[in-house]
Amino acid sequence: MTNTTKQKLIEAGLAMLLQHGYSSLGLQALLAETGVPKGSFYHHFKDKEDFALKVIDTYIGEVHKALDHCLLDESLPPLKRIRRFFELTQQKYREDGYMGCLMGGLGQELSGTSETFRRKIEWCFSSIGERMAACLQEAQRRGDIPKNVDTDHMGHLLVDCWEGAALRSRLRRDPQSLTAMLDFYLGSIATKVGVR
Amino acid sequence: MTNTTKQKLIEAGLAMLLQHGYSSLGLQALLAETGVPKGSFYHHFKDKEDFALKVIDTYIGEVHKALDHCLLDESLPPLKRIRRFFELTQQKYREDGYMGCLMGGLGQELSGTSETFRRKIEWCFSSIGERMAACLQEAQRRGDIPKNVDTDHMGHLLVDCWEGAALRSRLRRDPQSLTAMLDFYLGSIATKVGVR
Repeated sequence: MTNTTKQKLIEAGLAMLLQHGYSSLGLQALLAETGVPKGSFYHHFKDKEDFALKVIDTYIGEVHKALDHCLLDESLPPLKRIRRFFELTQQKYREDGYMGCLMGGLGQELSGTSETFRRKIEWCFSSIGERMAACLQEAQRRGDIPKNVDTDHMGHLLVDCWEGAALRSRLRRDPQSLTAMLDFYLGSIATKVGVR
Repeated sequence: MTNTTKQKLIEAGLAMLLQHGYSSLGLQALLAETGVPKGSFYHHFKDKEDFALKVIDTYIGEVHKALDHCLLDESLPPLKRIRRFFELTQQKYREDGYMGCLMGGLGQELSGTSETFRRKIEWCFSSIGERMAACLQEAQRRGDIPKNVDTDHMGHLLVDCWEGAALRSRLRRDPQSLTAMLDFYLGSIATKVGVR
């Protein structure tokens, strides 16, 4: 029951943070939305910052689950696994009404004023970039990308470009920028068409 | 004198919006920073939203001046003009302490809740994308990029990827992601090394 309450708050908070951002999120609105009493909120979370950090933990946990699901799937060549991960992410964005990426949103909003959020969100992006880099190394070993490509570098670059495309999809409420970015990146990096 | 006051408010507001975002910007802090009385603020601006929109107008005006300066410079091949524009932008980011791009920040923060800001900022990005596309067309006519490249599409994609790299530079407080993105994009699109 307690866990259900915590989970309910986190789920509602995730949707609200994605739409409204951090500063505009009112705890009253969150409590009204979930029907959870104030005391119960403070039983689970120290304050609004602690709550938002826990929401980010949940979000990045889901991202890593999707990364495991896609990037470790040896039935596909590595670049196709990367494509699959971003296609699933895009599908998630569609379900949310193209609100973009929670970490991109909070990273922009809060990294100018909060070292805590800046470090946390940089760590999140970094961890995704490393997973991409590992998959690119596999692609390189198979000859699917050129030997001289710096896979670490390109793993992080992929995450960065995706985040820019996610912002544009939020502004336009459509997925065009996401597909365009992914096609350009994979088309530029792959040695041949069949592997991407 | 009146114009100087307005300009002073806009300049201070730009730096404050870049660091704090919109919701956290207090008018009291802005007035304290600039030494401008409240009545004077409301003489120039209807409200905080009107003020932020005017700050965006100033920001995008400067961007278009820099675009004119770089992209119309016929002494350089078109792709080098594009590189020069982004190198100047990067220099600007450095002077600001790598706070990224104002439009990226406000776009993320406000486009979930305000149609006014969403449309305004999408219009800004769109206008930069079109300038990039026109310069890419010139590059294409000279044979510096392949004939089958969709220049409109690639102009917008460049702006999107830059914005993602700008977010990462804000999170890391360094320019590495910006340089990496630009090198990758220009390296992928150019037909030969000398033109980029």
